[in-house]
Amino acid sequence: MKVAIVGASGAVGHEFLRVLDEQNFPIDAEGGLRLFGSKRSAGSSIEFRGREYVIEELTEESDFSGIDFAFTSAGAGTSRRFADVITRHGALMIDNSSAFRMDDDVPLVVPEVNGDDAFNAPRGIIANPNCTTIILVVALKPIADIAPLTRVHVATYQAASGAGAAAMDELIEQHRAMQAGEEPKVEKFAHRLAFNLIPHIDVFTDNDYTKEEMKMYNETKKIMHAPGLDVSATCVRVPVMRAHSEAVWVEAEKPLTVDAVREAFNAAPGLVVVDNPGEMLYPMPKDVTGQDPVYVGRLREDLSQKGGVTFWLVGDQIKKGAALNAVQIAQYILARRK
Amino acid sequence: MKVAIVGASGAVGHEFLRVLDEQNFPIDAEGGLRLFGSKRSAGSSIEFRGREYVIEELTEESDFSGIDFAFTSAGAGTSRRFADVITRHGALMIDNSSAFRMDDDVPLVVPEVNGDDAFNAPRGIIANPNCTTIILVVALKPIADIAPLTRVHVATYQAASGAGAAAMDELIEQHRAMQAGEEPKVEKFAHRLAFNLIPHIDVFTDNDYTKEEMKMYNETKKIMHAPGLDVSATCVRVPVMRAHSEAVWVEAEKPLTVDAVREAFNAAPGLVVVDNPGEMLYPMPKDVTGQDPVYVGRLREDLSQKGGVTFWLVGDQIKKGAALNAVQIAQYILARRK
Repeated sequence: MKVAIVGASGAVGHEFLRVLDEQNFPIDAEGGLRLFGSKRSAGSSIEFRGREYVIEELTEESDFSGIDFAFTSAGAGTSRRFADVITRHGALMIDNSSAFRMDDDVPLVVPEVNGDDAFNAPRGIIANPNCTTIILVVALKPIADIAPLTRVHVATYQAASGAGAAAMDELIEQHRAMQAGEEPKVEKFAHRLAFNLIPHIDVFTDNDYTKEEMKMYNETKKIMHAPGLDVSATCVRVPVMRAHSEAVWVEAEKPLTVDAVREAFNAAPGLVVVDNPGEMLYPMPKDVTGQDPVYVGRLREDLSQKGGVTFWLVGDQIKKGAALNAVQIAQYILARRK
Repeated sequence: MKVAIVGASGAVGHEFLRVLDEQNFPIDAEGGLRLFGSKRSAGSSIEFRGREYVIEELTEESDFSGIDFAFTSAGAGTSRRFADVITRHGALMIDNSSAFRMDDDVPLVVPEVNGDDAFNAPRGIIANPNCTTIILVVALKPIADIAPLTRVHVATYQAASGAGAAAMDELIEQHRAMQAGEEPKVEKFAHRLAFNLIPHIDVFTDNDYTKEEMKMYNETKKIMHAPGLDVSATCVRVPVMRAHSEAVWVEAEKPLTVDAVREAFNAAPGLVVVDNPGEMLYPMPKDVTGQDPVYVGRLREDLSQKGGVTFWLVGDQIKKGAALNAVQIAQYILARRK
């Protein structure tokens, strides 16, 4: 396979390379990998499997012929502007931005949930969902297989990584400054994040939900093929480096039991149940950082809604929340093409 | 008035003194303040309004005669053991521990919600609710005045202060250690808190909710006189120093509207609405630390439940969540006794 990575110097770009390597993704040794970036990052080089690759500047003249999969993570503007350049010679663009996610002719895919949608991509574009939505639907799918879901309430605890590599640096720098008694700098976030919480991710929309919260509403419906499933989310940035956590309440058309949901969780792909309160075992960002699966725990009945259940989930935002899911989409396609 | 503080050297004990001073609580200059603590802290002295007060050891022989109000915050065990010593000469014990909160003959009071319950304290004990519950019910009360509440889903983001002064020090020390590349020490929390989240506060109960979560369930019913109001809470410790935050979804017997709830919030005592997304204004721990009121914002309709609303609240855990509420109980009694 020949693979291109667009946005190679970013946090997700780096993770694409790590994940492709970890997953033993079949990349041709000769000319099988090309890296693209902005003018600023062009010319710098990155090592992959013992070879140096130089980042090329992405322009209208960039030639993607021969590329099988292009993993793009350089923002919605770049994806929109270069989608035609990337796909016109037959490359399948697996796009991590929000540019095309809600387009009817672009599938929005989490392999554990709706992998087969990947085969219906008339524009040669498959969208990778929002990170917070990906890790949520991996846990919702096994419950939806018990009974169609109707309602989800979810409060998120989102790591700095969701705002990019520079934002992660900023959080560390803020902590250093505060330790030293200096005024912490605020550039990447709307406010100081160190020792603080920011209930505001992405921009606000007309209904006073943020775009991040509305992504969870809209993308969940699309991925799960569930127009009747409504999600009310509150998305909050927390001073954690890179794993996102969520407190979730779920209701379905039929009453759910904790036992049935636990059984479904245990059998579900991509999901690991860590739920042993007696031993103080439950998913936490510090343990899930760098891990592939989504972790669930704290499963119990919803005391305020008969037939509802509640649980806690944690997933690495850069892995399953971004790069890993995109690579898994390509793997899903390859495995079923043969 | 003559006031005693039990647990004077703790985080809440210190705050009792600060709040009594800020509130101009009428304390006799001569012999109007006595401080009590464990054997370990006895003998050390604390300044209040320009005088030094020496902490006395609390024993079975301690004499509380003449004391009007005893503010106690030294753990449930100490409160149970010394309740009789403290109250037998007529002192009113306003107890910050969980020892008596659910006792039928002990009122559980948040002045903005059920202040008059304070006048029915046959044992001479009034319980100060759990911090997370106090700040929640201040926001629920004005909504309940529109229509009786039925359901609350709440995810908490709780600061280190809830675990005491030593826990706050531990969080700072963990950050210092990690900055220095050292292994952070874990003593006061179940796990490392720096750059992490711990979905576990207080011990686990039989239904797999934690005691902290069940306090929110039980205490909310009692304070609000609402046996039909069920709360499902997920309580999470976050790396923040001292203000607690909560993402809340509320339903009532009648459909609620955002406009009606906003109007009720604006008119409610003890509550400040900060809700201007366009200006990036919403409550955050860094701004609420040290403040008296509970702050609410991010008010919007519940997209998953017609007639429900959702909002975000932040309250200082040591102030309204503990010391301030206790002092306000005493003030409520004094104002209405006259």
